[in-house]
Amino acid sequence: MTQCLNWQQLNADEQAAALARPSLPDSAALKTTVAGIIAEVRRDGDAALKRLSAQFDGLADNALLLSKAQRTALIAQLKPERKAAIELAYGNIRRFHAAQQPTDIQVETTPGVFCELRQRPIGSVGLYIPGGSAPLPSTVLMLGVPAQLAGCPRTVLVTPPGRPAAADIAPEIVYAAELCGIQQIFTIGGAQAIAALAYGTESIAKVDKIFGPGNRYVTEAKQQVSQDAAGAMIDMPAGPSEVLVLTDDSANPAFVAADLLSQAEHGPDSQVLLVSTSQSLIERVLQQVEQQLKILPRADIARQALSHSRAIYTPDLATAVAVTNAYAPEHLIVQTQDDEALLPQFNSAASIFVGPWTPESAGDYASGTNHVLPTYGYSRTASSLSLTDFFRRFTVQKLTAAGMRAIGPAIVTLAEAEQLGAHALAVSLRLQQLDLQQPDLQQQGSTQGESLNER
Amino acid sequence: MTQCLNWQQLNADEQAAALARPSLPDSAALKTTVAGIIAEVRRDGDAALKRLSAQFDGLADNALLLSKAQRTALIAQLKPERKAAIELAYGNIRRFHAAQQPTDIQVETTPGVFCELRQRPIGSVGLYIPGGSAPLPSTVLMLGVPAQLAGCPRTVLVTPPGRPAAADIAPEIVYAAELCGIQQIFTIGGAQAIAALAYGTESIAKVDKIFGPGNRYVTEAKQQVSQDAAGAMIDMPAGPSEVLVLTDDSANPAFVAADLLSQAEHGPDSQVLLVSTSQSLIERVLQQVEQQLKILPRADIARQALSHSRAIYTPDLATAVAVTNAYAPEHLIVQTQDDEALLPQFNSAASIFVGPWTPESAGDYASGTNHVLPTYGYSRTASSLSLTDFFRRFTVQKLTAAGMRAIGPAIVTLAEAEQLGAHALAVSLRLQQLDLQQPDLQQQGSTQGESLNER
Repeated sequence: MTQCLNWQQLNADEQAAALARPSLPDSAALKTTVAGIIAEVRRDGDAALKRLSAQFDGLADNALLLSKAQRTALIAQLKPERKAAIELAYGNIRRFHAAQQPTDIQVETTPGVFCELRQRPIGSVGLYIPGGSAPLPSTVLMLGVPAQLAGCPRTVLVTPPGRPAAADIAPEIVYAAELCGIQQIFTIGGAQAIAALAYGTESIAKVDKIFGPGNRYVTEAKQQVSQDAAGAMIDMPAGPSEVLVLTDDSANPAFVAADLLSQAEHGPDSQVLLVSTSQSLIERVLQQVEQQLKILPRADIARQALSHSRAIYTPDLATAVAVTNAYAPEHLIVQTQDDEALLPQFNSAASIFVGPWTPESAGDYASGTNHVLPTYGYSRTASSLSLTDFFRRFTVQKLTAAGMRAIGPAIVTLAEAEQLGAHALAVSLRLQQLDLQQPDLQQQGSTQGESLNER
Repeated sequence: MTQCLNWQQLNADEQAAALARPSLPDSAALKTTVAGIIAEVRRDGDAALKRLSAQFDGLADNALLLSKAQRTALIAQLKPERKAAIELAYGNIRRFHAAQQPTDIQVETTPGVFCELRQRPIGSVGLYIPGGSAPLPSTVLMLGVPAQLAGCPRTVLVTPPGRPAAADIAPEIVYAAELCGIQQIFTIGGAQAIAALAYGTESIAKVDKIFGPGNRYVTEAKQQVSQDAAGAMIDMPAGPSEVLVLTDDSANPAFVAADLLSQAEHGPDSQVLLVSTSQSLIERVLQQVEQQLKILPRADIARQALSHSRAIYTPDLATAVAVTNAYAPEHLIVQTQDDEALLPQFNSAASIFVGPWTPESAGDYASGTNHVLPTYGYSRTASSLSLTDFFRRFTVQKLTAAGMRAIGPAIVTLAEAEQLGAHALAVSLRLQQLDLQQPDLQQQGSTQGESLNER
C-alpha cells in the first residue's frame, strides 16, 4: 500500500508531489464551533465547563479539580514496573533539560553603558495532556520537566475526564505530574479546557502560556486564544506527526519497518516516508511491514497512515540527503553505514535519531530529548521544545553619566536623522545637565568597573 | 491633556480601565485588502509588485533590486557624522548580541544514551524596514546585527521605495545594511513586500522567517503569512509602542517629560504612562511636557498620543511596582532614589531603563540592547528580540547497544502503558537482536565515554 517512487524518474512537479503534505482541513464549521465553546467558557466559567463535560463526556457532575486524596489513591494503583519506567524517563529528560539552563548576560558595551539580558520563568503555564484511547504520561514529562526546571511559579495540567467518574484518569499521568511538582490537575479536555486556561474560570486561574498536543478542537482553540492579546501564548504550530527514515543497504529491515510503523500507528493522518539508496532494502522493509502489521494492536490505524506513505529510491546518499532536507521531517531516523558523515548535512529536521539502536521510541519516551517537535515543515524555522520556551527574556540597561557622555552625541545624531525630536531632546537635556554639573569630571563613572548589579 | 488618576481612589473596574490598552481595530476590510494583495503577488510575482508599486507609490518602473552601484552612490552621500553614529551604534549592538551566542549541548543521560541540542542559523531571513516620514537605520541594525552574528546564509532587506525614484532611499539605511552584510536590498514596502518574502517572486527568493515593524497593512500581512505553513514565520506579535515611567519625588521632571514625549512622538496610538509616588513630581512633569511640546517638530503627533495618556499617583513604591507589573510595559523607565532595590521586583517589562542617565532613546539607538520588543502586554510571556530568534534548535540522539539495553525495557513498559504496540516492537526487536548477538557483552559501549561527535 506504500507508494514506491524512483526519485530520478520523477519530474519536478512529481518530486514536489512526492514530498507534499496533505492540506490541513480549513473548516469554517470547526472554527465556529470552537469559537462558540470559547465564548461560552468566558461567559459562564465553571458552569460552562461542567455543562460541556455533561454534553461531551456524559458526566453529570465533573468536579474539575482532582483532590489530593484522589491523586494519592490513583498513584497507589500504579504498577511498580510502570512507576520505575516513568522514573527512568523522568531522570533522563531532567538531565538533558537541566543542561539547557539559561544564563543571564551582562555586557558593558561602552565604558559606562551596562546592558543585560535576563531570563526569568514565565509566571504561569498550562499543560494540555490528551486522554482518549491511551493515556500519555510521556507528554506530562515532556512538558512538566522543563516547567519544573524553569521554576515557573504556577504549573497546572488539564486532561480529559476519566470514566466512569471524572477522577478516573490514568495513574501514570498523575504520577508523572507528581514527579514534576504540578500543583493542580483538572479533569477537563477539549476546546473548553484551552478556553479555561487562556481566560480563567472560578476554579482554573488564567495562565500565560499553554503547551501540549491535542485533537483538532484543541489545536483550533489554541490557535484562536493565541490570536487574542487577552488570551494566552502557545508553544508551537501543530500538524500531523511524521517520520522520514533514511537508509542505505546496510540497515536492518525489521528495525526500519518497526520504526515506520511506530509513526504510522499514531494516527491515520501520520506521515511516513522511507528514503533509501537500495531498492532491495525498500522491498525487504515493506515485506517486514506486512508481517509486523499482523501482530500489532493498532494495525488498522497504521494501515490508514501507510495508505499515503511513500518509499523513495535515490541513486546516492547525496540525493537522499537533499530529499530529506527538502521535506524537513519532524523525526529523521538515519540508519546507514556512516551516519556521522551525513549528520552535518541535515539542515531542517526537528529531531534526528542516529544508528541502528536509536528508534524513534527512544526519543518519544526516555532518551531525554523532548518529543514535542515542530512538524508539517515548520522545523525549517521552528525549534524542538526546550527549556527556553518556559522562560521570558528581557533586557535591562543603565548608563552612568560617563556612559551618557560617551554615546549621547551619537544618539542625538541618529534621532535627528530619523526626525524624532523628543528622542534627541531626552539626550541633549541630559548632556546639558552634565555640562552644567560637572564640566571637569567627564570621566566619572567610566573607570570604576561597576556593574549594574553591584550598584 | 494627560488624565491624572489617584490609584487608591479608583475601584477595581476603574483601576483596570486605567491600565487598559485600546482595542486594536479588527478590520474585515483590512484583512480582505491584504489577502487580495498577497494573492496577487503569489499569482503574478514581480509583475504584481511593479503594478502595486505603480498604484501605491506612483512609480512607473520600480526595478525592485538596488544595484551595487546604487548602494555605493547612496553611501557616498552620507554625512560623516551620521556614518560615525551608525558605526557607534553598530559596535554596541554587536557587542551585546555577540555575548548571546548559543552553545550546543551534549549530555549522556544514561551510559550509552547521547543527547544533543544543536543550534543552527535559520537559512534565510527577510528584514522589513519601514520608510515613510523618516528613515529607520536603527531598525536595520537591530535586525541586521543578530542576523549577521547568527550567520544566516541569506539575509535580505525590503523597504518602501524612495522618491522621486525607487532607488532614492535613505543613505543611512543602505550604510547600516552594508555594515550588517545584507546581500540584497529591495525597494518594495507594504503587504506586497511581506507577500514577496513569504512566497517568493522571480526577483525575491522566498525566506523562512520575516522580522521587523510596519504599518497596519504590513502587520496584517505578517499575521496572514504566518498562519500559512507555506508562508513564513514571523518575529513576534505587533501592537502600538508604549512606555511606563516610574518615579518618586527625586526624578528630574524635564528628563521624565522628554522620556514621555519620546514615546508619544512615535505615533498617535503610542501609549504613555507616568506612575509616581509624588503628586508634585507629576505636576512638574506635566508642566515640562507642555513647555517641551512648544519646540518639538512632531508635537501634533505627540499631542494625539498624550490625549489618551495617564499619570497615576500611588501612595508608595510597592503600589507603583504592582501597577507596573499589572500593565506589563514594553519600555519601563525607572527613576527613583534607589532603582536597584526595585529592579528584582519587576516581572513583566520587556526592557528596563534604569536611572537618570538612561533615557529610552539610549536603547532605541545605541546602548546595545534590541529595540524590537513585545508590546501590548505580550511582554508577560514574549521576549525581547535576541540572537536566539535567528537560530533553530534541534535535537540529535544516539544510543549505543549498551544504551539500548539500559533504557529499552523502560521504553517497552511505557509504550505498552500508552498502548502503542509498534513503539514497543521497535525496541523489543532490538533487544532480541542484542540478546542473540552478544549475550555476554551487555556492558559494551557503556564505558568508553564516547560522544556522538567522536564516533
